[in-house]
Amino acid sequence: MRKITVGFLGCGNIGCGVWKLLHEFEKDLQHRSQVAFEVKKILVRDISKKRDEMIPAHLLTTEPKDVTDDPGIEMIVEFMGGEEPATRYMLRALQMGKTVVTANKMALALNWHLLQEAAQKHNAGLYYEAAVCGAIPIIRTTIDSLQANRIETMMGIINGTTNYILTRMSQEGSAYEDVLRDAQRLGLAEPDPTSDVEGYDAAYKLSILSSLAFHARVPFDVVYRQGISQVDAKDIAFGKELGYTLKLLAIAKREENVIDARVHPTFIPHEHPLSSVNGSFNAVFLHGHACQDMMLFGCGAGSAPTASAVVSDMLYAASRETPRHPTFRNTNALAENLEVTNDWHCSFYVRLSASDRPGVLAHITACLGNEGISIRNLMQRDAVDGHAQIVLITHNAGECAIHKALEAIDPNEAKVESMIRVEGK
Amino acid sequence: MRKITVGFLGCGNIGCGVWKLLHEFEKDLQHRSQVAFEVKKILVRDISKKRDEMIPAHLLTTEPKDVTDDPGIEMIVEFMGGEEPATRYMLRALQMGKTVVTANKMALALNWHLLQEAAQKHNAGLYYEAAVCGAIPIIRTTIDSLQANRIETMMGIINGTTNYILTRMSQEGSAYEDVLRDAQRLGLAEPDPTSDVEGYDAAYKLSILSSLAFHARVPFDVVYRQGISQVDAKDIAFGKELGYTLKLLAIAKREENVIDARVHPTFIPHEHPLSSVNGSFNAVFLHGHACQDMMLFGCGAGSAPTASAVVSDMLYAASRETPRHPTFRNTNALAENLEVTNDWHCSFYVRLSASDRPGVLAHITACLGNEGISIRNLMQRDAVDGHAQIVLITHNAGECAIHKALEAIDPNEAKVESMIRVEGK
Repeated sequence: MRKITVGFLGCGNIGCGVWKLLHEFEKDLQHRSQVAFEVKKILVRDISKKRDEMIPAHLLTTEPKDVTDDPGIEMIVEFMGGEEPATRYMLRALQMGKTVVTANKMALALNWHLLQEAAQKHNAGLYYEAAVCGAIPIIRTTIDSLQANRIETMMGIINGTTNYILTRMSQEGSAYEDVLRDAQRLGLAEPDPTSDVEGYDAAYKLSILSSLAFHARVPFDVVYRQGISQVDAKDIAFGKELGYTLKLLAIAKREENVIDARVHPTFIPHEHPLSSVNGSFNAVFLHGHACQDMMLFGCGAGSAPTASAVVSDMLYAASRETPRHPTFRNTNALAENLEVTNDWHCSFYVRLSASDRPGVLAHITACLGNEGISIRNLMQRDAVDGHAQIVLITHNAGECAIHKALEAIDPNEAKVESMIRVEGK
Repeated sequence: MRKITVGFLGCGNIGCGVWKLLHEFEKDLQHRSQVAFEVKKILVRDISKKRDEMIPAHLLTTEPKDVTDDPGIEMIVEFMGGEEPATRYMLRALQMGKTVVTANKMALALNWHLLQEAAQKHNAGLYYEAAVCGAIPIIRTTIDSLQANRIETMMGIINGTTNYILTRMSQEGSAYEDVLRDAQRLGLAEPDPTSDVEGYDAAYKLSILSSLAFHARVPFDVVYRQGISQVDAKDIAFGKELGYTLKLLAIAKREENVIDARVHPTFIPHEHPLSSVNGSFNAVFLHGHACQDMMLFGCGAGSAPTASAVVSDMLYAASRETPRHPTFRNTNALAENLEVTNDWHCSFYVRLSASDRPGVLAHITACLGNEGISIRNLMQRDAVDGHAQIVLITHNAGECAIHKALEAIDPNEAKVESMIRVEGK
């Protein structure tokens, strides 16, 4: 039995979950891996705070160096969240040659180049399965199981809060604000929900996933981002009628050396495997040139599922004699050989409120036609107050073209109420 | 760049797929892994046979020793299928200290104990991601990502041929024989379809999966097996009406130290993630005590998807300094601490053809009631020729109890036409 000494950075919900899993499942873990983890120090902000788990007081410290600098600690597990001071502490631990396991998508997405550089320079392991999609083994799958693939598409529901909100809006026809309030009451959304509902959380994760998928750094700041706070229940209902489900998708595509990476509300056909991923579940759908379609589905958050991923990283690190590093350059810039485009191609759902008089439809279709955009589906609803609702779905078109076409529509004829991208067909 | 010399055992559809992937994707593989594979010898039955890939004639041999015994070959990839001579050749290669990568579920399920023993004794790697579910990384996920879990349930659609047949029967209402004939014409079913349609293929795979999930050998011969050749389109239609989809599921469950492992047609609710896995796709749904619900979905067969898994194993083996072995005992018997039961508990769907007269329902429910079985759903259809169709779904009950109850039904009152297990609720 090999003993590995461990230090925690932080001990909130996830940290306590890892403590619990390591202790309750200790015998099984030792039997399976021939490794015994011993937690030696835990950095916390407040030693006297009440915790879910009975953690001996002598393990707690408020001094970061007690964890990062102790030569008697071989492995650091970081649960602090946020960019700093987490990044600084992890860098320090890597410089000391320690293995670092982290669940921190923000620190990783923003400072991966620094962390990876330190890991490689000091021959230390850096593992982050828990940073993306909780228990779902999407990081390890991308690194260990899809290396023989040119991954062309990755589309994920990688934020549970927004998926919970959109699922309930879709099932109940409720308004965004009402469901958000409910989610906050249930602890499924933060008091300040910005990071989730405006897509920051998903964009951090997509930066990590797409970098691994494309073997080239895709920095956070090139990820296009649009959240769900402006989603209108009306569009969810119209989409449903037309055979589509609305999801906040994180999408990364590659064609030759041009990529796009984007987070936005997206309609997908009811038959698409992502369409039935409901509530706070996560899933990543991908297409590789050899593996073809694949999807991984599971719990993207929560104390136990995240602990499952963290401990799997600890065991994975323990099973290797040399650390495993990704192969792309340590830079925070887009890889030299890649170009990122904001002019991606997909279908578009457009809802317009139009004056109910002859010639309006002709005007709209002309504006689209001028940009080479043709219509696949069109639905017109009875006029209320002299204004008809027109809903259309285009054939494949460019992002720039659709914007140009919609701007050309005379606001006296029709008002563009919403535009939602359509993927998956 | 490290060079690794490779020998193929067999070169049919999958072998050619691996050859193609290794060569077409050579530069990317080398860049990503810093490993260059060189195929040095390929064992074939017939050197003159026409193959999809242009393989230099001097690489082909009909002499097994040219591959298994050549000290200049470090890694063997086996695509022969069938128990022998594949097992013998793999054993020989392992004894020579070579890494073995195999796509052969039958050889592995039946002789895992021998292969694993040889691998451990000679410190050789043995990898088999492609043996179960093609491109889906279920083996690596179980070994590397779920070690911190007590896996309680694994339910999979792990045979594409039967899923294709059941999907079409369900969508078109067609009869089993008609769809099978079609599948054979399309190359989706073998001329002798027994291994697929009678559940042998799925049972081999379930033996492998459940052994890894439970960390204890679950031999092929303890897996209960019932195929789809007796499935009646009528039951698929009735099930659909009641909210269920019929799938051939491979199921392994564990409660304390009692397990069950079984392959049989199974009704699952439409809302279950496995329910929408259609056509020849595969998927494995599982529940672990920490990760909670998880599902992996993808292509379970085909030349390119299987090659994706084979090459991922080759790269995984190349990335490790020491081979990775599972932790259970090298035995072909059920692990000492486990007990296998054939008296599992689930719900049951039963269809009866009954004489249309008073008292019949009372008799049926009494027979069930005597075994402590209560009814959740009951549906009766108009009598044809004086015989009514009665369809019922029970609450949770034992396998033995349902058999006893159905045997007690007086055949003059009602005839049991079919009994199908119901899972997932």
